[in-house]
Amino acid sequence: MAPGAASKKKTEDEQSSKDNLIHLSNPHLEKMKDDVLYHFALGTGTHDFPALFGDVKFVCVGGSPSRMKTFITYIAKELGLESASGDYPNICAGTDRYAMYKVGPVLSVSHGMGIPSIAIMLHELIKLLYHSKCSNIIIIRIGTSGGIGLEPGSVVITREAVDATFKPQFEQVILGKTVIRSTNLDDEIAEELMQCSKEINQFNTVIGNTMCTLDFYEGQARLDGAICSYTEEEKLQYLKAAYDAGVRNIEMESSVFAAICNLSSLRAAVVCVTLLNRLEGDQISSSHDVLMEYQQRPQKLVGHFIKKHLGKV
Amino acid sequence: MAPGAASKKKTEDEQSSKDNLIHLSNPHLEKMKDDVLYHFALGTGTHDFPALFGDVKFVCVGGSPSRMKTFITYIAKELGLESASGDYPNICAGTDRYAMYKVGPVLSVSHGMGIPSIAIMLHELIKLLYHSKCSNIIIIRIGTSGGIGLEPGSVVITREAVDATFKPQFEQVILGKTVIRSTNLDDEIAEELMQCSKEINQFNTVIGNTMCTLDFYEGQARLDGAICSYTEEEKLQYLKAAYDAGVRNIEMESSVFAAICNLSSLRAAVVCVTLLNRLEGDQISSSHDVLMEYQQRPQKLVGHFIKKHLGKV
Repeated sequence: MAPGAASKKKTEDEQSSKDNLIHLSNPHLEKMKDDVLYHFALGTGTHDFPALFGDVKFVCVGGSPSRMKTFITYIAKELGLESASGDYPNICAGTDRYAMYKVGPVLSVSHGMGIPSIAIMLHELIKLLYHSKCSNIIIIRIGTSGGIGLEPGSVVITREAVDATFKPQFEQVILGKTVIRSTNLDDEIAEELMQCSKEINQFNTVIGNTMCTLDFYEGQARLDGAICSYTEEEKLQYLKAAYDAGVRNIEMESSVFAAICNLSSLRAAVVCVTLLNRLEGDQISSSHDVLMEYQQRPQKLVGHFIKKHLGKV
Repeated sequence: MAPGAASKKKTEDEQSSKDNLIHLSNPHLEKMKDDVLYHFALGTGTHDFPALFGDVKFVCVGGSPSRMKTFITYIAKELGLESASGDYPNICAGTDRYAMYKVGPVLSVSHGMGIPSIAIMLHELIKLLYHSKCSNIIIIRIGTSGGIGLEPGSVVITREAVDATFKPQFEQVILGKTVIRSTNLDDEIAEELMQCSKEINQFNTVIGNTMCTLDFYEGQARLDGAICSYTEEEKLQYLKAAYDAGVRNIEMESSVFAAICNLSSLRAAVVCVTLLNRLEGDQISSSHDVLMEYQQRPQKLVGHFIKKHLGKV
């Protein structure tokens, strides 16, 4: 090997990593003539994906359709890309499963609640980005969560998405058999987001582990569901064990989000506001206005991050 | 015991079973002053539940909010209870997590996609029915599914909801530990629904097992997701094994629906139309009009069932 070969190889790898394309871990897709993304009501046979989505660089996803519309309105203003009408059409208007909005390089997509719902959306989103020949995508979930040991309204940037036993893994069932997948997220983006929070300096932000559960009530040790078989003491014991394992918030999508993005070479982050402190209660009973202001915090943080990346700060 | 005592006891039991109240398996709720049903944007402190919902006898649930609005419009017409405006307000207008509509004794509620999403809805729905002092409720999921070995458009009434290994059980994680729950459904209602299908005689209907999965793509052995690690042969082997175990359709909510209804003494049934035959493909590529007509079939069947129960057939 020539003396410069190793460093040349490294430079090429860096270049290839810089022009990071979507990785589709599915050899069968090559054989398909058309691809119907059923839950988006979009298809390669009916829509020109590269023309519609080829310039996307940032994908922001969140549970609620109206919140994702609020986000696209907010980011359009921040980037100076407001539409003349002030409105942004729902690209998935042909279905009510998900809602999708776009402004310049930013795509905003709702995913509903829970692992299965976000997983359907991610499979179709990743195929959409692939068919659109997108590159260098950063994807961020901006969501709501229950906090542990944090003042309500605090924002948690996820270090690791962990399961109900505090392990950084996601169990995917394939053909009836369970496969364990890693839930790594992008450390560099997490640190950048933390830096953004310091710059805007408007609310408490921490980097911590996020517990992802399959259930909101019994799965998150709530005492206020229709079914509950444990005591308040057992609940608190569980939540304190989660805290000791580094968990700072609980939500219902981060583990499969991390697992699928990992397998698709998508750089990913999770930023959730905490609506309450679970060590102090279960019910989300703050006023509508307070909850609305809390929900804007991840949007502000991620908005600042996008502006920095685009050299607009 | 007096000669008549045994039969008198039986009559009382029958009476008590006839006036079947909602069973809340949660001793903590008694201690709560107010109950905020966060994902419905309703609460006992702000809404008069018995006045709003006390007369409900039939609850129909399905994934899509617009489909549940279509259903309430349909059933209102069938029962001769049309609103003067022709419109039906969304009772959960304060949130976009779920949509809820009511006409006479019928409540129609959307639940989103997947086990976690329907579970949140069911916890809050069961508390709503309890706070409203409802009795003798029948709850039916009217949904869409993938069929196995059935002509597309066939309707499946679920005998047993089974998991990805074809077992009639649901795994609930509580405080990090897995608890197995039964997924029994009401046999009598299933038979009544089958009889209704014979009476309306418009489409193929079968009673069969329904496989409930946590994932639409890999979890249902699809070849067209963003990720796929198995061959077409392995896929077909899995689906044929499901068929041999009595599975006639696959969806994503029935097991937790059955488990939660069981624990709450709610008589429950699942009626789903099949949008495609999974032995012949994975993509849902029928025309919009065909799919719309398919989706009306469970509504027609359940509409007929409700009319019969109300003596309107």
